Amino acid sequence: MKEALAQADRNQKRLGFVPTMGYLHEGHMSLIQKAKAENDLVVVSVFVNPMQFSPGEDFESYPRDIERDYRLAIAVGADIVFHPDVEEIYLPGASAAVEVTGEMTRKLCGVSRPNHFRGVTTVVSILFHIVRPDKAYFGQKDAQQLIIIKKMVRDLHIPVEVVGCPIVREKDGLARSSRNVYLKPEERKAAVVLNRALGIAEEYLRSGAERNSDVETLKNIIRDEIESEPLAAIDYVELLDGVTLENVSTVLHGKEVLAAVAVRFGTTRLIDNRILSILRK
Amino acid sequence: MKEALAQADRNQKRLGFVPTMGYLHEGHMSLIQKAKAENDLVVVSVFVNPMQFSPGEDFESYPRDIERDYRLAIAVGADIVFHPDVEEIYLPGASAAVEVTGEMTRKLCGVSRPNHFRGVTTVVSILFHIVRPDKAYFGQKDAQQLIIIKKMVRDLHIPVEVVGCPIVREKDGLARSSRNVYLKPEERKAAVVLNRALGIAEEYLRSGAERNSDVETLKNIIRDEIESEPLAAIDYVELLDGVTLENVSTVLHGKEVLAAVAVRFGTTRLIDNRILSILRK
Repeated sequence: MKEALAQADRNQKRLGFVPTMGYLHEGHMSLIQKAKAENDLVVVSVFVNPMQFSPGEDFESYPRDIERDYRLAIAVGADIVFHPDVEEIYLPGASAAVEVTGEMTRKLCGVSRPNHFRGVTTVVSILFHIVRPDKAYFGQKDAQQLIIIKKMVRDLHIPVEVVGCPIVREKDGLARSSRNVYLKPEERKAAVVLNRALGIAEEYLRSGAERNSDVETLKNIIRDEIESEPLAAIDYVELLDGVTLENVSTVLHGKEVLAAVAVRFGTTRLIDNRILSILRK
Repeated sequence: MKEALAQADRNQKRLGFVPTMGYLHEGHMSLIQKAKAENDLVVVSVFVNPMQFSPGEDFESYPRDIERDYRLAIAVGADIVFHPDVEEIYLPGASAAVEVTGEMTRKLCGVSRPNHFRGVTTVVSILFHIVRPDKAYFGQKDAQQLIIIKKMVRDLHIPVEVVGCPIVREKDGLARSSRNVYLKPEERKAAVVLNRALGIAEEYLRSGAERNSDVETLKNIIRDEIESEPLAAIDYVELLDGVTLENVSTVLHGKEVLAAVAVRFGTTRLIDNRILSILRK
């Protein structure tokens, strides 16, 4: 990687970076395309990071296809695909870690995945140190991850601009995810309930503004819709401040609220989210 | 700082960095001089880092004299002196941290200063991200700090070469330290016992090689000498592997062993150390 960057003569070039766990889908493609549009040189990393999986999670079974990833990444504009081994990222005896402490990492996915974000911030900081990008691109689908990475970059003064990019969805509304391949056909059909429930809440808020801005009501709307789907088992339904992930009781004018859900379909756990806000009149 | 670096046109220049807590002494001077000899541009930071002090330690009373520091640093070759406020390094609400986990940070000074090294690794990584040096210079006097920073840089792939530099001593052997100013005259005299005790152990090892390489014996020699000084109260006397800080039972051929001591004189806690090894015949 270092040799490739040296050969690319990156001086005076803007370098965009898209860190991924591979098995690329349209969501990743949109990140790479945006990186290409905004930079002279684009690096895509493909690394399934063991540190962000808990024992019993799907690290071993996580889908991998580096040949396909390589072709797809290059096809949409990547200049370099970085595919390190685990032992190259975590050197023998490695014990250093980067973490964001506080409520932000303990809520939402932090409840069922207590060490997940510590693994994410550690690997992202390692990749930033190796690639040294000007800008790095992350999907809004992993909203909590995006917020935590922005916090890490700010707090540790890492010289990278973090860019969040919109969720890319299937035609029926299901958010693109490498884990969608786990779904059985009937689960795949049921999984559209995530986007549908978030859409109903958004529509309810829009139709009434302040009158319909109570967070408990909005949560119940989402929860009721998801529970109407027999194959769906809710992990969480939360509405939190869109920047700090602090608790909020209403959607206030000019504030963004993150509506985030995690739902299991059989053994597959999916997440989705929407930014809710009341437009100024 | 960022403007100063941009103005200095650092492209193609080697940048050396000496992070300090200020109140510069001959030890710091030697670091700055070495940095100047090996680089085109030298940055010295002066920042008393609150995160590496525990409640009840000497953060408030730590000696400060930025005017003098500035003059001294420039006089021996610094190009830029970086003296940030606490609020510039730790932005409002900052909660990210960098740590090296494991035995390495729990031994020696980690026993009486449990969060000290977490504060050190966090601030050093922040300063590295801001200054982005090619090489950074640290004193061997803080031997455990040097080992931990090297580990952090390696594990997190931080693109900085960490250079350790020899301890600089007063004429009577006392290691230079900003905290030496705390010592009352009789404590100042007594404090030479640290270097003397380490020297006696070194001489004992040298005089017998393998025959005198038992770590417990060497520790007792150091301990006995320090205890002969009534004003000295031992915090620790340890001999550990010089790279990993793992326990060792003998000084082996070709291995470096760190003999490290921490001793209180009144309210002042001083540290000193020596690398012990058996020369190959």
